[in-house]
Amino acid sequence: MKIALAQLNYHIGNFESNTKKIIDHIHKAKAEGAELVVFAELAICGYPPRDFLEFEEFIELCEAAAQEVALHTQGIACIFGLPVKNELPAGKDLYNAAYFIEDGSVKAVVKKALLPNYDVFDEYRYFEPAMNFECIEFKGKKIALTICEDLWNINNNPLYIHNPMDELIKQEPDLMINIAASPFSYLHDDERVEILSKNASQYHLPLLYVNQVGAQTEIIFDGGSMAFNKDGILIDEMAYFKEDFKIYTFEQNELKGLQPITHQVIPDIAQIHDALILGIQDYFRKSGFQKAVLGLSGGIDSAIVCALACRALGPENVMAVLMPSKYSSDHSIKDALDLVENIGCKHEIIRIGEAADAFDNMLAPVFEGLAANLTEENIQARCRGILLMAMSNKFGYILLNTSNKSECAVGYGTLYGDMCGAIGVIGDVYKTQIFQLARFINKDAAVIPENTIVKPPSAELRPDQKDSDSLPDYDTLDQVLMHYIEQKKSSRAIIAMGFEETLVKRVIKLVNNAEFKRYQTPPILRVSPKAFGMGRRMPIVGKYLA
Amino acid sequence: MKIALAQLNYHIGNFESNTKKIIDHIHKAKAEGAELVVFAELAICGYPPRDFLEFEEFIELCEAAAQEVALHTQGIACIFGLPVKNELPAGKDLYNAAYFIEDGSVKAVVKKALLPNYDVFDEYRYFEPAMNFECIEFKGKKIALTICEDLWNINNNPLYIHNPMDELIKQEPDLMINIAASPFSYLHDDERVEILSKNASQYHLPLLYVNQVGAQTEIIFDGGSMAFNKDGILIDEMAYFKEDFKIYTFEQNELKGLQPITHQVIPDIAQIHDALILGIQDYFRKSGFQKAVLGLSGGIDSAIVCALACRALGPENVMAVLMPSKYSSDHSIKDALDLVENIGCKHEIIRIGEAADAFDNMLAPVFEGLAANLTEENIQARCRGILLMAMSNKFGYILLNTSNKSECAVGYGTLYGDMCGAIGVIGDVYKTQIFQLARFINKDAAVIPENTIVKPPSAELRPDQKDSDSLPDYDTLDQVLMHYIEQKKSSRAIIAMGFEETLVKRVIKLVNNAEFKRYQTPPILRVSPKAFGMGRRMPIVGKYLA
Repeated sequence: MKIALAQLNYHIGNFESNTKKIIDHIHKAKAEGAELVVFAELAICGYPPRDFLEFEEFIELCEAAAQEVALHTQGIACIFGLPVKNELPAGKDLYNAAYFIEDGSVKAVVKKALLPNYDVFDEYRYFEPAMNFECIEFKGKKIALTICEDLWNINNNPLYIHNPMDELIKQEPDLMINIAASPFSYLHDDERVEILSKNASQYHLPLLYVNQVGAQTEIIFDGGSMAFNKDGILIDEMAYFKEDFKIYTFEQNELKGLQPITHQVIPDIAQIHDALILGIQDYFRKSGFQKAVLGLSGGIDSAIVCALACRALGPENVMAVLMPSKYSSDHSIKDALDLVENIGCKHEIIRIGEAADAFDNMLAPVFEGLAANLTEENIQARCRGILLMAMSNKFGYILLNTSNKSECAVGYGTLYGDMCGAIGVIGDVYKTQIFQLARFINKDAAVIPENTIVKPPSAELRPDQKDSDSLPDYDTLDQVLMHYIEQKKSSRAIIAMGFEETLVKRVIKLVNNAEFKRYQTPPILRVSPKAFGMGRRMPIVGKYLA
Repeated sequence: MKIALAQLNYHIGNFESNTKKIIDHIHKAKAEGAELVVFAELAICGYPPRDFLEFEEFIELCEAAAQEVALHTQGIACIFGLPVKNELPAGKDLYNAAYFIEDGSVKAVVKKALLPNYDVFDEYRYFEPAMNFECIEFKGKKIALTICEDLWNINNNPLYIHNPMDELIKQEPDLMINIAASPFSYLHDDERVEILSKNASQYHLPLLYVNQVGAQTEIIFDGGSMAFNKDGILIDEMAYFKEDFKIYTFEQNELKGLQPITHQVIPDIAQIHDALILGIQDYFRKSGFQKAVLGLSGGIDSAIVCALACRALGPENVMAVLMPSKYSSDHSIKDALDLVENIGCKHEIIRIGEAADAFDNMLAPVFEGLAANLTEENIQARCRGILLMAMSNKFGYILLNTSNKSECAVGYGTLYGDMCGAIGVIGDVYKTQIFQLARFINKDAAVIPENTIVKPPSAELRPDQKDSDSLPDYDTLDQVLMHYIEQKKSSRAIIAMGFEETLVKRVIKLVNNAEFKRYQTPPILRVSPKAFGMGRRMPIVGKYLA
């Protein structure tokens, strides 16, 4: 039996595009001799559809799309994910399900049992967990078909109280298939290989795994669909960060003709690089825009975003705006212009002095006798925000936000100023990773100017300002932040690890005090296991421990 | 047996304040002869603690606070809610639980079974549902103690597959107690009375119900704790929108000395009025600020916010900033000044012309040959945003956002302009309700100037602009919006109700296209069953049906 896996980039709610992709790949699979073609979890509607699932019309359109796909399955079978109605009088309205379709009709509906409801996941908001498990049968073979998380209790994950495969294995299946929408983080891929391998070996069955690829606003799917033999050995791995399609031969209860391979270990920074480019591309493609604008300061953050945007959209679609003030150093303008020259994007220079002065004048009667402070620094950042949004409004550019994760964490940014933008490109990348990313971008040719990388980071909002005036060095800061944000450790535990008490308490207080700002930031491309945004839901007026 | 109900205003994560309140009311109850005092769901930590629950230290502090409370229960028993650890090897880490404490020690731990995970609720993110149900015993009586949602399956709510009271009733309890954190909406109170009444009558038991009161950022609890007799008749109702404390006498399995009463029907607008004032007060009190700033345009929205803020914080703590442009009409300035005079708050007048002109000049080379359009309107709104944020930064004022729900819905507002602010006061109040609210505020004396109420709404961003130039009349608009947002109806269904097709499609498209803006708006005080914010989670780059 020949089984095709189609690793595709879906678009949430775009039935026309998703259905066409699925149908095209059914025809391709058939043309290449496959008897079964497998698509990802919720392939019909994209993942995560969020509250689209609460609109009855949306569910009807999912079913209509599935029926349209079914029309193209003469002489071939297919499997894809979609939400289906719960017809029982109790429980949530929907199941996260998969259709097994053969020769035009739905032969089986498989439902997901383990519903992730942590971090970015909200599946209990919409779905009832499955309680019954049955293998599907195809051409005399039994297939244990599961949906994503249903294989993730293999290590007795404390989140869940049962394990669907323990039920399915009683029916003596010949093959396991798992369809997934498993979001990327730079730590996730190794764990995924381990979990899937362990399933194959524990149940002593070959396993085919199909993931989604592509970005849906902040959530990025990296693909990396895989095949394992019954000893849990990886025997094939599909592309990362792009669509892919493979046909496997399943004979005598084995996936034939494949040798053991080693999981391709991609360095974290390379993964982050590819993920961010895909994230930018899909944000623009799926929202129907082509052109980006960003403020280019001469510093490393905006330089990286500019370079990534040029790789994602083409330099001809990127407008870099230099907005120097009286506090901008000469080298900043030169560094920014060097970058523009290196990558060939468009640029404008607009000095902000006139607007900043106007605000100073207008506020003079109200601020009389008060010294300049953070207020005036924020005014500068907000003047830049206005200029960038004006460019966006006038020319249809989408504004890219250039704040990094260390800044977002400690609130080192101006709301409605440098925190403006439609999408935060590097808001989940710590400053120490930013430097690595710059080196990675420069690996084949100098793109980010050397001076941009080596000079001390500065917001240049007052004379001779340096980040290090008000923040600890980034190596230390980022370690403390990771312990607090990713690991959810207490200040006490972090101090016990050897970090200086005053510093730890100050950093955590900064993080907590910035919740109100982060509430209003753009969505941030998620590349870590714990990004700011929908995966981290903190109170605003709550009293924090530090 | 005398049982006290304490309806209190907790603060999320503020163990010091919550514990003190609970202990004070234990002493008060004891002094007044009560043998049992009952506090609300998650009283120890406040509701909703959100991802605070993922920090181990937070859970330890909840337990420590509970132990401190226990020290004060000599000669009295108490019941309060708190998160407790799930000691089993499987399932979520926590239960949403209640302690029953008598004479210093925890005699029973009751766990919640029905975990709301819809709209603003995320309880499955943190909690494992209870599977075992046991009455607590106190002074020879059996009490069926349940937590909030556990009584909400009385009408066979399709969300849930079981009903904890059906188990508890088998143990032949004498009394029902329900502790809750049941968020306010102007439609919620009547339903609550009905559900509770039905529980009491169906199980033929008296019922005491204790709710929280107070606001936690956007979520407002209205109190309204209640007592029912075993026929399901309401016999007492505590205060709405403020703390309250009552002692009931439970003898011969009845709540003695209370006559049937009618549920106090408070008009929607009065409820909204009181809820918003409490929402403002608690935002400031719980975040440690006293003073508010807002932009006062002369229009009805900012007038209402100004009036509510003055009622919540005192006029001496409210700074209204008039920021006229060349497009502002004379009557706008006069109307704004009339309001200031009526309510006695502080004000400043800052004309925005100089800054707006500066931006026009700075952008002239880039915008050469292009006609003025929305870009220039947005620049004006954003200049105002900068001024208000400068006032906030310099003086420590908290900026109140004045956008109403109709505007938020259709995206009729400028991101980083009039959409700035720390908290959206009227972002869940439709424009048609805004007019009613103005009349309500004026019921005893003229506060909102008559001209502000009767003049045609206008953003005054270009000459002679009116809202009605680009939007349908608000009566129609708000009806369509309610069908789409609150009722989640499709455009087809709304058109079938008799609304004009072009209008419906246009309105829904405006709503959908504004998702990216709403992602970055301040938290909005929730007064309806479906507010923008955490209770409505829509994709951003998804393809919408209209």
